[in-house]
Amino acid sequence: MNVAIIVAAGQGTRAGGRGDGSGGGRAKQFRELVGEPVIIHTLRRFEQSAMIGEVFAVGPAAQSSALLQLLKQYQIRKVARVVAGGATRTESVWRGLQAVRSTTAEIVAVHDGVRPFVTPDEIDETVRAAQAHGAAILAAPIVETIKEINNGRVARTLEREGLRRALTPQCFRYELLRRAYETALSENLTATDDSALVERLGIPVAIVEGHPRNIKITRPEDFALAEVLLKEFAD
Amino acid sequence: MNVAIIVAAGQGTRAGGRGDGSGGGRAKQFRELVGEPVIIHTLRRFEQSAMIGEVFAVGPAAQSSALLQLLKQYQIRKVARVVAGGATRTESVWRGLQAVRSTTAEIVAVHDGVRPFVTPDEIDETVRAAQAHGAAILAAPIVETIKEINNGRVARTLEREGLRRALTPQCFRYELLRRAYETALSENLTATDDSALVERLGIPVAIVEGHPRNIKITRPEDFALAEVLLKEFAD
Repeated sequence: MNVAIIVAAGQGTRAGGRGDGSGGGRAKQFRELVGEPVIIHTLRRFEQSAMIGEVFAVGPAAQSSALLQLLKQYQIRKVARVVAGGATRTESVWRGLQAVRSTTAEIVAVHDGVRPFVTPDEIDETVRAAQAHGAAILAAPIVETIKEINNGRVARTLEREGLRRALTPQCFRYELLRRAYETALSENLTATDDSALVERLGIPVAIVEGHPRNIKITRPEDFALAEVLLKEFAD
Repeated sequence: MNVAIIVAAGQGTRAGGRGDGSGGGRAKQFRELVGEPVIIHTLRRFEQSAMIGEVFAVGPAAQSSALLQLLKQYQIRKVARVVAGGATRTESVWRGLQAVRSTTAEIVAVHDGVRPFVTPDEIDETVRAAQAHGAAILAAPIVETIKEINNGRVARTLEREGLRRALTPQCFRYELLRRAYETALSENLTATDDSALVERLGIPVAIVEGHPRNIKITRPEDFALAEVLLKEFAD
């Protein structure tokens, strides 16, 4: 079975949250977007995915019962387990991975809980690419000009055709992701995405072209943009 | 004297405009943001700059009188000339450059008309860096993970600490920018920013760290984000 680990354990401090679920200071994954919490929008995409059989939702440790309550309220049915997250994203994914049944897991899709704009088709296509290649990530083109810098000066302008912004989901064969995390944890490595940990093992990672709309809601102003995108999305 | 070329000659088709100034189909630089056209917000930043003496506003050829009217209506005083733009950004900047008096121009700051969130301090700091080094651009850190791709696979994850998103203004000694454009035009080169044309001459370009808020308003959803940023900006 293919499974998804949805990482939503952040304290949301950058978006003004306090991570304790109180009042307006809620962590960003629990804040409402057009009347529903962000994490619920995200989970619905995985409910609609044909390829994902089970979801492991990794939330803040102190919010497990609140998250369970939300799943019930919004009738999210694919979540097999709510997992208490750790202090870092790496630790949270690792805890999610330990909750997955190793005997039946085929592909594991890791996805940011604050990326509600992924489509079920994008999820399914990335899972299929991981089935074919072992590892695959969703990625979007870059519209800005990117400079490599050195010592406060431009070293060169990169050819943006050859660059992509990494999005999620990032999908891997279970054993591969498990090995990548074990290596990272034993060597105390950190990375800005899961793919980088797998790349370090020398494993080729396939690229699936995704829509740039699949933003990560991080800063307070992202909510305003997200409201607009969500309305457009619904049309 | 230091001068600015504000490039606002786009037809705005990506933001849903028709470029003819009619109704809701206005080119994006003429669309209103919190009650004022985007281009006016941008020009105000240059009005407030201590280092910029004159501004050359490059607009759509068919909109010169409309643009002049706006300058009068909003009491923009630094614009020395409204210049009719060309078919491409390169051509528009080149036309702006030809309007600049070569005998008195020291630094030329090229800025996108649809970047209203630059601050007067950022403009001044970039002009000063160009005075010291010959060429300087405003640039912002990258928050996402960037992958170099090859043949549909990840070639490597780039170290984002060594990367920057190029913003504007991009500031150059007049002769240097003129030479860069003459070379580009004679060799029929295009580039995604002005700095790349100067870099091609082998000239070092200094980096000035700018705020990520300095976005280019390009897509329809950017207007929603821009409204939020502008309200925050005003506080």
